[in-house]
Amino acid sequence: MNKQFTQLLTFLALTLSLNAHAQQPNVLIIVSDDQGWGDVGFNGSTDIPTPNLDALAADGVVFSQGYASHPYCSPSRAGLLSGRYQQRFGHENNIPYDRVTEDDGLPLSELLLSEHLVSQGYHTAAIGKWHLGDHEKFWPINRGFEEWFGFYGGGMSYWGDTGNKSADHGVLRNGEIVPLGELSYLTDDFTTAAIEYIDDFAQEEEPFFMYLAYNAPHAPIQAPQKYLDQVSHIEDGERAAYAAMVVGMDDGIGRVIQKLKDTGEYANTLIFFYSDNGAHIHGASSAPFRGHKGMMFEGGIRVPFLFTWPEGIAGNQVYDHPISALDIFPTVIEAAGIKSPDKKLDGVNILPYMRGIAEKPHRVLYWRYSDGAGYAVRDGNYKMVYSGYKEEYFLFDMEEDPFEHTDLKTLFPEKLHSLQQLYSAWNENTVPAKWYDPHAENVLKEEAERQNYINKAKGGERKK
Amino acid sequence: MNKQFTQLLTFLALTLSLNAHAQQPNVLIIVSDDQGWGDVGFNGSTDIPTPNLDALAADGVVFSQGYASHPYCSPSRAGLLSGRYQQRFGHENNIPYDRVTEDDGLPLSELLLSEHLVSQGYHTAAIGKWHLGDHEKFWPINRGFEEWFGFYGGGMSYWGDTGNKSADHGVLRNGEIVPLGELSYLTDDFTTAAIEYIDDFAQEEEPFFMYLAYNAPHAPIQAPQKYLDQVSHIEDGERAAYAAMVVGMDDGIGRVIQKLKDTGEYANTLIFFYSDNGAHIHGASSAPFRGHKGMMFEGGIRVPFLFTWPEGIAGNQVYDHPISALDIFPTVIEAAGIKSPDKKLDGVNILPYMRGIAEKPHRVLYWRYSDGAGYAVRDGNYKMVYSGYKEEYFLFDMEEDPFEHTDLKTLFPEKLHSLQQLYSAWNENTVPAKWYDPHAENVLKEEAERQNYINKAKGGERKK
Repeated sequence: MNKQFTQLLTFLALTLSLNAHAQQPNVLIIVSDDQGWGDVGFNGSTDIPTPNLDALAADGVVFSQGYASHPYCSPSRAGLLSGRYQQRFGHENNIPYDRVTEDDGLPLSELLLSEHLVSQGYHTAAIGKWHLGDHEKFWPINRGFEEWFGFYGGGMSYWGDTGNKSADHGVLRNGEIVPLGELSYLTDDFTTAAIEYIDDFAQEEEPFFMYLAYNAPHAPIQAPQKYLDQVSHIEDGERAAYAAMVVGMDDGIGRVIQKLKDTGEYANTLIFFYSDNGAHIHGASSAPFRGHKGMMFEGGIRVPFLFTWPEGIAGNQVYDHPISALDIFPTVIEAAGIKSPDKKLDGVNILPYMRGIAEKPHRVLYWRYSDGAGYAVRDGNYKMVYSGYKEEYFLFDMEEDPFEHTDLKTLFPEKLHSLQQLYSAWNENTVPAKWYDPHAENVLKEEAERQNYINKAKGGERKK
Repeated sequence: MNKQFTQLLTFLALTLSLNAHAQQPNVLIIVSDDQGWGDVGFNGSTDIPTPNLDALAADGVVFSQGYASHPYCSPSRAGLLSGRYQQRFGHENNIPYDRVTEDDGLPLSELLLSEHLVSQGYHTAAIGKWHLGDHEKFWPINRGFEEWFGFYGGGMSYWGDTGNKSADHGVLRNGEIVPLGELSYLTDDFTTAAIEYIDDFAQEEEPFFMYLAYNAPHAPIQAPQKYLDQVSHIEDGERAAYAAMVVGMDDGIGRVIQKLKDTGEYANTLIFFYSDNGAHIHGASSAPFRGHKGMMFEGGIRVPFLFTWPEGIAGNQVYDHPISALDIFPTVIEAAGIKSPDKKLDGVNILPYMRGIAEKPHRVLYWRYSDGAGYAVRDGNYKMVYSGYKEEYFLFDMEEDPFEHTDLKTLFPEKLHSLQQLYSAWNENTVPAKWYDPHAENVLKEEAERQNYINKAKGGERKK
């Protein structure tokens, strides 16, 4: 019996069984922050131990070509929760850090996954980093989440300290300040909150949707001794500290999964784990891919990404075709058997692919930031990148050259042209960014640092 | 017909054929400087292109567990050329940088491979970095090399500039200063010299021994535009500049191999390529192994290492048991069919292992620096490390845990004890270092930097 046929039978059996129970699945989306593609065991990390994520991966599907929809934090999350390209509603840059206005946030006109699910009878909770608007009207509790434990900004001391800022920039529970004395290490605190919510939700008839957005391993690089001890074999101090943050998150995910098992919820829970964008440059690694956070090369957008649903999807799979974080919204709707929102979603339901009853999705993926200062298109094996800070186009064959070494644009000008045409057509259905791009400074600074090394290296070369 | 038997037949046929011609092989030892294990394509590098080394590897044997005999430059080279543990003659530290006396160099009482081969009728040439004594009596032309093009110190501007130092600290040809105007980029200049010597040697009846010791990719990190252009896909500037140096060396090696082929010498030349120690910390990478240059973890001593001899050894092999740079001397003697020196050599002839007519060598490998401030022993799968700067012993099972994450010393105290006993016995046949260790400062500084990251990471942790 071939594999696809076996999977089809499994699928039919499960569908019948699910219909018999009429039990909608729970949904758990776990987001990691600035973690590199290679920095999980299931993608081959040899230095950072992630046993809990690896065990989860073994129960489900690893996406070897799983993409975030944006190379920075805030827009990536906006795409995830709306299920739509951020550029359709002006949220294509990070929220301004210090000039934030009360209009800067994920537009209220967008229907979020949380809003849709709560309207369909799901219980909902958001935990961790929000970064989709500092003003109260944008907070999770006003965006479809019944429960919220976390902070609204883009970064936060892991010890909960707000420094010179007022306490309301700190950790909040349903909008109320959590006293510092109740916090230990944010990664642990978020894990604890998730476990408490699962305990509550498990007593309800209705399914739940939990959005567990760790800010680990985003800056600041902070970790307690207990996690640092687990990576004492890493001799590069910066990477060791970063790795300890990944270990803390992995440890927390292990405890969350255990709670799901203990409460009997695990088997019928869809779990997605992915990083909001590629590796930042302080100890993280997008190896073996080119580039890092903020770039349209794979290192900026290809991320650790897995999916499990024990009752619905066979485990121990690797899916090798591109999928996007935008696919989560439509996949959840399909799995939950609920109606689609009125707005056009940009992802696809990936369940048929995971079940081997459909070939790879034939479609094109797009990325853009800063009103087109950088953008990329992937169509099949071909990928076009426009890098504003390098002022250059690139064309890659991702099957032949997955690490993006060889620019083919002069060899295949027609292909470049056809990808440019695709991009232009897509671009027509977008709007300008609603606020300036505070992250662009980082990208320019990183490129300047790069050029500085190059210039220094060739500085003494004698001209012939 | 099984593989070993086929290899045996090949070996016998080759031996008969060689005897018929009575033609001794040439020997080419190419040394790379501070290059990381993973920074060659034949060990899996995905970012640094090394097509020429990879092609060479395909013609011969890659040693997946190839070891340098020391984690820094100068002693490693002393071990290579003498075929003996450096600690037997006091050369276990780098040559002092600024307090060098005229006694500081590879002792004249040691018989070098060059001295032995020249006495047996070989033509000899040394090219590149020496680092085995600044004083004239230690120079290659006084240590068995008929020809010498290179510099005697440990580091050198790739543009040939000597800065504030006199010109005789620069590049010399047989001891005479080479004018700056005749130099371009040292890596290229060394390649050019190697090609010229091969042209000369090819006209001789006698075989030749060439020691081609590139100082690339050691600091300073300098490279011309033409090599930087080949790694423009590397977005980390420091790594890009380092990678360009590796590319320059690979390009040079390709041209040297081509010259050997053009002159008909390639098929009967033993070629060794290896790095003198593990990755330095400025852009190089010993990934996936632990640590870097100066350490007794694998990242300090396990290096890119290959061997080819088209007429004598089947190609396309990977040899997975430990071998050491100390094995080169006895292997060369065996291949050349000449007498052994009177002194005890510490390596073994590896030809029978490459030919599949002997099992893996059963023996123990030792490392030591700074009179025991750091040392290591490997016996089979077990490896003991004593780290002076961490003030700690480690015991690893290299088969179960090749990346040295899990210290087993408390689990297997008897094993630790037996390795300590081996070390003590070996140590009795060594002498104290003849000069202080200038590199120890680097190791301590690197450890302090590491600890600084760790302390900063845990700085805000609240005590319960």
